[in-house]
Amino acid sequence: MWMDTKSEAKQASRTRAGLHQRLFNSLLLCTGDMLHLDQHMEGKLFVLQLAVWSLRGVARVILANNPLSGALILAALYWASPWQGLLGTLGVLASTLTAVIIGQDSAEVSAGLHGFNGMLVSLLMGVFSSAGDWYWWLLLPVCFGSATCTFLFSGLSPLLDRWDLPVAVFPFNIVIVLYLLCTGPNNPYYPHHLATPPGALELNATQLDTAEVVRGIPLGVGQIYACGALGPSLIILGAVLLYSPLMALHALLGSAAGTLAGLSMAVRHASLYSGLSGFNGALGCMGVGGLFFTFSWRTHLFAIASAFLSAYADIALSNLLGSVGLPACSWAATLMVTLMLLLTGQSLAAYRIPIGQVKAPEHNLRSRSQWESGNTSDRESTDV
Amino acid sequence: MWMDTKSEAKQASRTRAGLHQRLFNSLLLCTGDMLHLDQHMEGKLFVLQLAVWSLRGVARVILANNPLSGALILAALYWASPWQGLLGTLGVLASTLTAVIIGQDSAEVSAGLHGFNGMLVSLLMGVFSSAGDWYWWLLLPVCFGSATCTFLFSGLSPLLDRWDLPVAVFPFNIVIVLYLLCTGPNNPYYPHHLATPPGALELNATQLDTAEVVRGIPLGVGQIYACGALGPSLIILGAVLLYSPLMALHALLGSAAGTLAGLSMAVRHASLYSGLSGFNGALGCMGVGGLFFTFSWRTHLFAIASAFLSAYADIALSNLLGSVGLPACSWAATLMVTLMLLLTGQSLAAYRIPIGQVKAPEHNLRSRSQWESGNTSDRESTDV
Amino acid sequence: MWMDTKSEAKQASRTRAGLHQRLFNSLLLCTGDMLHLDQHMEGKLFVLQLAVWSLRGVARVILANNPLSGALILAALYWASPWQGLLGTLGVLASTLTAVIIGQDSAEVSAGLHGFNGMLVSLLMGVFSSAGDWYWWLLLPVCFGSATCTFLFSGLSPLLDRWDLPVAVFPFNIVIVLYLLCTGPNNPYYPHHLATPPGALELNATQLDTAEVVRGIPLGVGQIYACGALGPSLIILGAVLLYSPLMALHALLGSAAGTLAGLSMAVRHASLYSGLSGFNGALGCMGVGGLFFTFSWRTHLFAIASAFLSAYADIALSNLLGSVGLPACSWAATLMVTLMLLLTGQSLAAYRIPIGQVKAPEHNLRSRSQWESGNTSDRESTDV
Repeated sequence: MWMDTKSEAKQASRTRAGLHQRLFNSLLLCTGDMLHLDQHMEGKLFVLQLAVWSLRGVARVILANNPLSGALILAALYWASPWQGLLGTLGVLASTLTAVIIGQDSAEVSAGLHGFNGMLVSLLMGVFSSAGDWYWWLLLPVCFGSATCTFLFSGLSPLLDRWDLPVAVFPFNIVIVLYLLCTGPNNPYYPHHLATPPGALELNATQLDTAEVVRGIPLGVGQIYACGALGPSLIILGAVLLYSPLMALHALLGSAAGTLAGLSMAVRHASLYSGLSGFNGALGCMGVGGLFFTFSWRTHLFAIASAFLSAYADIALSNLLGSVGLPACSWAATLMVTLMLLLTGQSLAAYRIPIGQVKAPEHNLRSRSQWESGNTSDRESTDV
Repeated sequence: MWMDTKSEAKQASRTRAGLHQRLFNSLLLCTGDMLHLDQHMEGKLFVLQLAVWSLRGVARVILANNPLSGALILAALYWASPWQGLLGTLGVLASTLTAVIIGQDSAEVSAGLHGFNGMLVSLLMGVFSSAGDWYWWLLLPVCFGSATCTFLFSGLSPLLDRWDLPVAVFPFNIVIVLYLLCTGPNNPYYPHHLATPPGALELNATQLDTAEVVRGIPLGVGQIYACGALGPSLIILGAVLLYSPLMALHALLGSAAGTLAGLSMAVRHASLYSGLSGFNGALGCMGVGGLFFTFSWRTHLFAIASAFLSAYADIALSNLLGSVGLPACSWAATLMVTLMLLLTGQSLAAYRIPIGQVKAPEHNLRSRSQWESGNTSDRESTDV
Repeated sequence: MWMDTKSEAKQASRTRAGLHQRLFNSLLLCTGDMLHLDQHMEGKLFVLQLAVWSLRGVARVILANNPLSGALILAALYWASPWQGLLGTLGVLASTLTAVIIGQDSAEVSAGLHGFNGMLVSLLMGVFSSAGDWYWWLLLPVCFGSATCTFLFSGLSPLLDRWDLPVAVFPFNIVIVLYLLCTGPNNPYYPHHLATPPGALELNATQLDTAEVVRGIPLGVGQIYACGALGPSLIILGAVLLYSPLMALHALLGSAAGTLAGLSMAVRHASLYSGLSGFNGALGCMGVGGLFFTFSWRTHLFAIASAFLSAYADIALSNLLGSVGLPACSWAATLMVTLMLLLTGQSLAAYRIPIGQVKAPEHNLRSRSQWESGNTSDRESTDV
């Protein structure tokens, strides 16, 4: 439909804008950071609050901060493997409760910052255990390891705060490596698989299956939760989409970049097919493209660079740690995003968002554009 | 005896308190930090001053700062092995003298801060050398390595000062690992034993001997000085008791926790029997329980947690470094105490003592209670 | 000739001083930092500017900052191996251009600070590649790795700035280790040699050839550019001489100290003959003796100490990294100079030059003596 007169067009656009605004607002209630929920939860039962904090923690693993995303992801994990789902739930609860007990900052606890490392540690403990599912003794190290993550998180934050850096998943990466080293390959109580380096020679190397490689790209998103099934991986991707479409896009893009990097280095086919080549790329891409930096074309290019660098660094670290049977986890992506946050110069540093104000990319974008338009109108009004 | 009248009771309690006070004061002269000795030593011969500084350095290894404890420990080491005693003496002298020569802060030198790393390096060089006792060429790397510790101490302190962290035994840990790597296993001049990882398989594994395991607990205190004999270990424990009973208690407690951690991970029996499983736990427990934090029930619980974490981290690092034949030394305890000092939140950080004011735990306790009662009386007086 | 009268002597000395001064000044135009060239280049074609920046970058590898030295060194590299020369040129251009593109500080770019890491990475990629010369696919990782160096340089600088430390060759060391790990030993696209640890046993060990060992000392200077031929190494030494005679002296001295350290640890003969034992010593000696500290007898002694420490640390790290087939590159010297810059106390810290004011040693010496004499004359004039 084409508007004839100017006033009519204005009227209609206003109405449309109003409707659009209201729709947008109601959608925003379930997407983004859902900060309004925190106000709603105040004064509620501790168990309910703990549930929200933990669900935020679950989503934080994939850099999202939305309890609905967390619930969706947890459901996906229970679908993939009930045992893994149980371990994850226990991990996020153990580390969050430890944070409450040792008196960590309540704002941090309620933002789920003390949950995600514990969850990752318990998921990885389950994946690497060779004692099979429902090996109940594993709950001991799961609780102990998750609680240790809270200590590490609290201890690393003053170190990294000096440069306004997030603690990210450093605690998880440290604890899981120490756990696997501590138990060793022949432990009678907690036996575990050894990680195979991606550069290891394959004896029965066959032709590369393109369909499998493409399938590895969404699996790379699931591998962030150590989940190697396609269905749950897609649900996890959906949970990210709920938090922020931009992040979901960057997750897929980063996973694809990681797979490309893996191809260029001729890694083991299993590594490409399972999505293990892609997940560091996905994390590296998501962190730079929209979360810690305001989205723009420049940030987007840096995000792709970060994805490739994360993926190559991951292959390198996996080969190094794999020589003693250890996995490289997400060391590569964590270090690379930290590096990107430290970059000086006008290209990227100008877009950086202070860690305390990091929100969903769409929110970051709006607040910056509002702030900029505010600045412009101020300047205009002073001009008059 | 029961006092009838109030005034009599007061009188008696005063007398008793006075006597108690005087006894306490005269006991304090030989226990704690013996700061009065420093005033007494001023203007004395350099050789005498150097002896006191070095004895403080000897005691500093086990976190004590008392020249009498140092003398006791040195005697224990000479008892265990005269060659080791000689190496230790040479190490503490070499690094203290280097500090004097390169012009380090005189307050630091006289507090023995430049001696303990050098002593540990030379003791460990002696223990790992496979050339036997009285191999005089070893004195060359002993002097060189001890001097290097002073450089590292001086260089690391501005790095760690930013977070008010102690340099602790980082220099020792770095230098001994570099020395063992440098000489390698087949060195014609300085051959050395390879360290066996605690998780290594034992071929002739026998039943665990409970008496031996219990005996390993006090040995864990001696292993801080790389001493594996029971008698000298008990003297070392006595030296700690002289400095501070609380520290001695925590040393035993930490060693027991470390042994428990070792049992839970099924480490080699030799590691449990020799006390090697316990010494990192002991150090981790002593640092948190009373030294760097005012003693309280909370600190005590954190000290036990720190002991377990140190012990597990030590098993992990020993397995990692043991795969290239290196010992993990006290990396685990040093890192863990550093982590504990960095912890944020109200539980532990509130009890933290600034590094410059760290004294014997009993002194820390008294100065804090005096300070708190002072605050209360001030408040009362202003209320009136 | 002996002057009789005072006025004549003064006159002659003035004339001589004037001539000397003029000669000195005209010599200074080609030596030292050649800062006047920067003013001259302003507003010139970008390609010309880029050439000067890159030549500065080439010289920066060996701690010199002089485009003429850079040109001389580049010529030496092309003489030694045209392929290596091409790789080096490409590396320095790629990383400098990346710095321009991602908007790094222009003062840093024009000082060549973003070139030297990229150059080193590409030279080492060429040396370790087992695909032979003129393997054109290698240009891909060369460009990618050199560009990554710029990212690392930019990211590490805020970390190290806190302690006024230079980023030095940390980016090169990180990137080359990651590259070699990433490609692994059996990579189908980018195969590479494994590094042999210096402590490895030699089966056909023959008598040590003194002439070869002495020849290894100047080769140690060439090995800073991964160049193992004598002629080019001497030209490189000449290029350093052009920048600063003091630095050239320390380079040789450090290389000799490194060779001595290698002898004392009985490293492989090949390591001594090729100069690989000496180059970390050379770098460690040059950094402390004159560049980052004003030259004096004390600094000189510290420089020799730094050379020995760098060399020993290099043997240790080479043995460690060699166990997984990696080279230790210049990790040892970089870490040791960083440690020396951190040293507290009056001996060395008093001579330290702030990183922003580091110039050629001769210039540092003159500016300090001028500054001190200025202080003295000021004091004298106020006395009058």
